[in-house]
Amino acid sequence: MTVPFTHFPSTPADSPERATPSGIPVAAVYRPADAPIDYARDLGDPGSFPFTRGVQSTMYRTRIWTMRQYAGFGTAQETNRRFKLLLEAGQTGLSVAFDLPTQMGFDSDSPRALGEVGRVGVAIDTVDDLHQLLEGLPLDRVSTSMTINATAATLLAMYLVVAEERGIAWSALSGTIQNDILKEYIARGTYIYPPGPSLDLITELFAFCAAQVPQWNPISISGYHIREAGSTAVQELAFTFADTIEYVSRAVRAGLAIDTFAPRLSFFFAAHSDLFEEAAKFRAARRMYARLMRERFGASESSARLRFHTQTGGVTLTAQQPLNNVVRVTVQTLAAVLGGTQSLHTNGYDEALALPTAEAATLALRTQQVVAYESGVTATVDPLAGSYYVERLTDELEERATALLQAVDAMGGAERAIARGFFQDEIAKSAYALQLRVERGEAVVVGVNKFEDGAEAPPLSTPDYSRLEREQVERVHRARARRDTAAVQGALAVLRGAADHSSGAFRAPVMPNIIAAVRARATIGEISDALAASWGVYRPAA
Amino acid sequence: MTVPFTHFPSTPADSPERATPSGIPVAAVYRPADAPIDYARDLGDPGSFPFTRGVQSTMYRTRIWTMRQYAGFGTAQETNRRFKLLLEAGQTGLSVAFDLPTQMGFDSDSPRALGEVGRVGVAIDTVDDLHQLLEGLPLDRVSTSMTINATAATLLAMYLVVAEERGIAWSALSGTIQNDILKEYIARGTYIYPPGPSLDLITELFAFCAAQVPQWNPISISGYHIREAGSTAVQELAFTFADTIEYVSRAVRAGLAIDTFAPRLSFFFAAHSDLFEEAAKFRAARRMYARLMRERFGASESSARLRFHTQTGGVTLTAQQPLNNVVRVTVQTLAAVLGGTQSLHTNGYDEALALPTAEAATLALRTQQVVAYESGVTATVDPLAGSYYVERLTDELEERATALLQAVDAMGGAERAIARGFFQDEIAKSAYALQLRVERGEAVVVGVNKFEDGAEAPPLSTPDYSRLEREQVERVHRARARRDTAAVQGALAVLRGAADHSSGAFRAPVMPNIIAAVRARATIGEISDALAASWGVYRPAA
Repeated sequence: MTVPFTHFPSTPADSPERATPSGIPVAAVYRPADAPIDYARDLGDPGSFPFTRGVQSTMYRTRIWTMRQYAGFGTAQETNRRFKLLLEAGQTGLSVAFDLPTQMGFDSDSPRALGEVGRVGVAIDTVDDLHQLLEGLPLDRVSTSMTINATAATLLAMYLVVAEERGIAWSALSGTIQNDILKEYIARGTYIYPPGPSLDLITELFAFCAAQVPQWNPISISGYHIREAGSTAVQELAFTFADTIEYVSRAVRAGLAIDTFAPRLSFFFAAHSDLFEEAAKFRAARRMYARLMRERFGASESSARLRFHTQTGGVTLTAQQPLNNVVRVTVQTLAAVLGGTQSLHTNGYDEALALPTAEAATLALRTQQVVAYESGVTATVDPLAGSYYVERLTDELEERATALLQAVDAMGGAERAIARGFFQDEIAKSAYALQLRVERGEAVVVGVNKFEDGAEAPPLSTPDYSRLEREQVERVHRARARRDTAAVQGALAVLRGAADHSSGAFRAPVMPNIIAAVRARATIGEISDALAASWGVYRPAA
Repeated sequence: MTVPFTHFPSTPADSPERATPSGIPVAAVYRPADAPIDYARDLGDPGSFPFTRGVQSTMYRTRIWTMRQYAGFGTAQETNRRFKLLLEAGQTGLSVAFDLPTQMGFDSDSPRALGEVGRVGVAIDTVDDLHQLLEGLPLDRVSTSMTINATAATLLAMYLVVAEERGIAWSALSGTIQNDILKEYIARGTYIYPPGPSLDLITELFAFCAAQVPQWNPISISGYHIREAGSTAVQELAFTFADTIEYVSRAVRAGLAIDTFAPRLSFFFAAHSDLFEEAAKFRAARRMYARLMRERFGASESSARLRFHTQTGGVTLTAQQPLNNVVRVTVQTLAAVLGGTQSLHTNGYDEALALPTAEAATLALRTQQVVAYESGVTATVDPLAGSYYVERLTDELEERATALLQAVDAMGGAERAIARGFFQDEIAKSAYALQLRVERGEAVVVGVNKFEDGAEAPPLSTPDYSRLEREQVERVHRARARRDTAAVQGALAVLRGAADHSSGAFRAPVMPNIIAAVRARATIGEISDALAASWGVYRPAA
């Protein structure tokens, strides 16, 4: 949520040499010859291949993007209150942040959870916590995104069991689990298991959702965290699609027909402050993905539409002069919307200091609403199309990202490139270069390395989570006390057996057995341990 | 500074019929054929006729726009402190707001000034007040804009006398007086005299500045107030240029060679929230002006460059949920910058409630700095060029504004059209239509007619100005007491004689005699009364 400072696009005003933050040189003037366009081949109308101009034909004219503010802290009850506040304020989708123990598969009373319960998101131990989180929310009418990866299958299982126990059909549910384990190895670090079984479970979830929860996106392949780790926009594109190729290839090798699961692949990108590079990045992403899906996988048109969620760049926020972040987030919102995002989270201006206050979260939502309803940018689809500069940037971003993707191909794909540390090294190099530019003042961060006001940044606010933690620990104790222990143990034993991966494949489908364990009130720690007993845990090379 | 609510671009998200706030229909998709461009004729490179892409070849790559925050309140001493705060915070130009008595030519101790001294700007009675206002400010290095019209000549005279008494050559001064009396009759209301002598004094100032203060802009022809009064962007363009034609035609008829004064004509526009219509408006403005100056007046290229200051739209700010205004001002800043403004004032988020606090004024400046140094939009000139939508809007705005301008021509020009109430009626119709759209919810204002939070808007803050008023009254009394009364009376008598306009022209140049009266410490009220004695005062038709 916070870093001391970060990278920004501009060179000083008097510098004649300009480049985007990705290092693409920027000329003083662009003219028609700088971006020769074959309209049908390179752009196409919105809703038509290669979808450069958007995945729908009318876009925001008929439906504004989903305003989906990522939220979660403390107990399920407190997060439920924040969700209701946001829905009343006009939010149109839910997005759940989980605490680290939930992400890592530890129960709240585990020694490994101590001090982390409810901190960066909500604590979930059993399906009853998720019941409380979703109390009063219309699951058949609101879509829910869950930022969860190593334990994604368990959280999806819990969501399905909540629906089932509330009498809502799975087919009526819509939402997304992040479930993008590769970027955890690359950038984010909340992995548990080795890649092999982790990737096989993802393939299973593709098939499971296609068959049983058809409006659910079983994955959100994420460039966001790659970008947050310090990558450029070019790397964000290339590595996201390298991961995509890994997931899709494995699913195809496992026998899934591309067009049965690909229409439900979803994506997650960052929106940083360079307005045009970022808007062009989203346009390039759609074209690149469409070509890739058609050329590599023979996918149909509906499998070639890149649908994505966007979040404004957490690392671009500053602790100093925090209201400046409202300005940054507005620019980033415009970048996402001019880029044609399907859904958007805007950061609270105080997120460099603490979890956002209700006031900051509301203003972040208002930022989206002002852009949606007052700025006029929704009146026509892809308003930047044809701009000599934007089309040139779109071309350059696609070319550079494609070249980097080919380098990953040459290494044998994303899993191998990650094992070699290639993504990690490339991102670290970019992060270092960007930090140097800030330290040298070549990249300006208002209030940090220019226009400082001498005021101290407010101290990081660290609320006292100990009461929340005690309450959640008591809650999981009570949950264990009231369930049928033998039934839980039985379900976990069956799950362990199904998950056996010693032959290089699961002995039986894993997901139905996770669901059964969830129904019996197994905890997230117990389910995660059962899988770890079969799969072991991942340790990165030194 | 405040209105209860106002007009905004968007129709509801589910409406298939879209139009810009000026009423230009917006299609779902724009394609190359929608805006066929003859590059050399319609755009040209930046710095080349017709200047659609900008008046300089490298624009913000080599020099960021002037960040010029309009400020002034209370006494000269207090405003001087605010100016120093803003310069320390990185502002790059000064902009003086004057109180109503100063704008209307009343001394602070006049019964007509009571209750208004120091309210909406700084109170200036004699040149010694201006000395205090500018104390410690480097007049040979900072440019100063003064929002002053009916008394513009007097304030310019005071500025020149301050420089002279500080030993700074007039040729080293740069700045602008607004001095646009026509828009006062149309929209703003701070006129004193009838149009005839008022317009002749403006012609005299064109010649005076060209000869004696060559870096001074003797006028800032203002669409801003026309827009604030409720006009559309099309009307803002058309009426601003109708006024321009009136000023230029008179100067030419008076024998001034076009290229001696036209390079120093400057302009002032509003930036509202419809990002693309506003950016296109500025591009259309440059092209329209360039063609008009060349075709109507045979002006050279350097007389055909439209240089303008922009202010974000005061009427777009809301008292409700005031931090939403930071978002609006950011969008409007982008519109101005994508439109190629030369200088910019960004409104404080609390201006719908009161004069901006120091905190809000600083954040407004930070908004410009984030856009200038972090958003990347300064990296290339006119980044929107070529966009099918923006080029089409640019064409449409020029066409519609040109048609309206021709209607004014047909009435015999701006002075006659104003006398008939044409501008005023057209603006009132637009204002009414826009207000209806808000009342019907067809135009959304976040926090006002949608996404209200039920909180009361904070009350208007009205600080106690009585102490300031008393101090300023004492100051003007002391100023009168210590001067050479006979010298003042003599200078005023000479001025009255020179200003005699009974023959339809001044008997002698007026400006040198205003300067002489200022040097003798005549007050603004005395100078204004001397002119009124010759010219009478203007009373609008009922």
